[in-house]
Amino acid sequence: MPLSASSELDRLCVVLVSPRNPLNIGAAARAMKNFGFSRLRVVNPYPLAFREARSAVGASEVLRTAHEFQSLAEAVADCQLVIGTTAARNRHLRQPLRALPEAARSIRGRLASCRVALLFGAEKRGLSNEDLSHCDWLLRIPTCAEHGSMNLGQAVAVCLYDVVRTRGVQPRRERMEPASAGDVEAMTLGLFEALRLSGYVNPQSAASAEAKLRRLLRRLRVPAADAETWFGIFRQILWKVRQVNQS
Amino acid sequence: MPLSASSELDRLCVVLVSPRNPLNIGAAARAMKNFGFSRLRVVNPYPLAFREARSAVGASEVLRTAHEFQSLAEAVADCQLVIGTTAARNRHLRQPLRALPEAARSIRGRLASCRVALLFGAEKRGLSNEDLSHCDWLLRIPTCAEHGSMNLGQAVAVCLYDVVRTRGVQPRRERMEPASAGDVEAMTLGLFEALRLSGYVNPQSAASAEAKLRRLLRRLRVPAADAETWFGIFRQILWKVRQVNQS
Repeated sequence: MPLSASSELDRLCVVLVSPRNPLNIGAAARAMKNFGFSRLRVVNPYPLAFREARSAVGASEVLRTAHEFQSLAEAVADCQLVIGTTAARNRHLRQPLRALPEAARSIRGRLASCRVALLFGAEKRGLSNEDLSHCDWLLRIPTCAEHGSMNLGQAVAVCLYDVVRTRGVQPRRERMEPASAGDVEAMTLGLFEALRLSGYVNPQSAASAEAKLRRLLRRLRVPAADAETWFGIFRQILWKVRQVNQS
Repeated sequence: MPLSASSELDRLCVVLVSPRNPLNIGAAARAMKNFGFSRLRVVNPYPLAFREARSAVGASEVLRTAHEFQSLAEAVADCQLVIGTTAARNRHLRQPLRALPEAARSIRGRLASCRVALLFGAEKRGLSNEDLSHCDWLLRIPTCAEHGSMNLGQAVAVCLYDVVRTRGVQPRRERMEPASAGDVEAMTLGLFEALRLSGYVNPQSAASAEAKLRRLLRRLRVPAADAETWFGIFRQILWKVRQVNQS
């Protein structure tokens, strides 16, 4: 299923609580658009920041249709599941805490039937204890202990990515068929002849040199699709070194 | 295992190619720090941008220890696996393309023994075809088709997150260590010169022919243990075809 076709993604609301930096608001909106989400809510933003983010060149539809709320309670009133993001440092947390991979799996499941709010706090302080009290459970991005605090736009991107990461897009797998043994043998003989004419091969040990070259070429596992190109390359070199010996 | 305790993460180099925005360079470095990575390389950055990013208040150690390179080839020379990120729009891609979840699994496995370069292109255009020719395979973050292009700092954050998200799983060990990108590049240049002297290369399309040859050689995944032998082979052929042109 293509990500953008899903109405499930419309059930997720990204809620930015008291954001102060217009670039971060814009970055959050951009990440939402990248991963197919559309509902942005902003609680009590620094007024200039929100205005500036909205009026920025290239501000997306996500930003233009964002809703502004005076309180967190209002912003999440219609949601059945409320999740707070936290760096979880220096605090006694009173709610269950899940690491992002597990949290994202849970969110995916709940979006089938619920409206879910995913909360991100202000740049410096994150969500307050009062904010967290509105949450059913908390989510932590598994960053390093010493450098736990993420940039807001990047945190939004990482969370949304994990919610959709296993959806939709099937990777196009290039199966690189190796060339047949016959093709590899033809390459071996062509290159060996070029090397012989170039004086690389000691006539006394020609047989073992040929075997060594064969093993060397087989280890390369030349893709079948490239065999013709390599033939052309070896033919050209062979033609050239023959010129020398005839001159 | 705590993420930050791992020396495996030090084997991943994040390579920013021609970045223009100091905020994005800073954001990339911050995401690296968040997820426990430390090696940042910058190729041919917009000079003011790199200087500004480094001198910003709170610039991290990742940024202070970042290395600057004049060319992509130099930046990845010591890496055994080179991966390019791409939005994969409007282009005929010539390398295997993997979606991030699968790609991240593969990168995790390879970090057990290899130095891996993960490339991110400039903000507007991404990686060029010439840049991509240095890659073993390409990675795509599964964004919506219509809004595929991510912000640079967010793209770095999402990729690095997925590499570390399920740590603890035992990586699969590769049987044969592949040669470093620097060795493969030296082979590319040697063989290209031999082909040029042999009349295989149309002077009008020399640049694209060189990129094609680079991809062809990278697909072979030449084992590190064989690199010296292949150098010897190419050197000998080159010596021989030069004789013709001198005679």
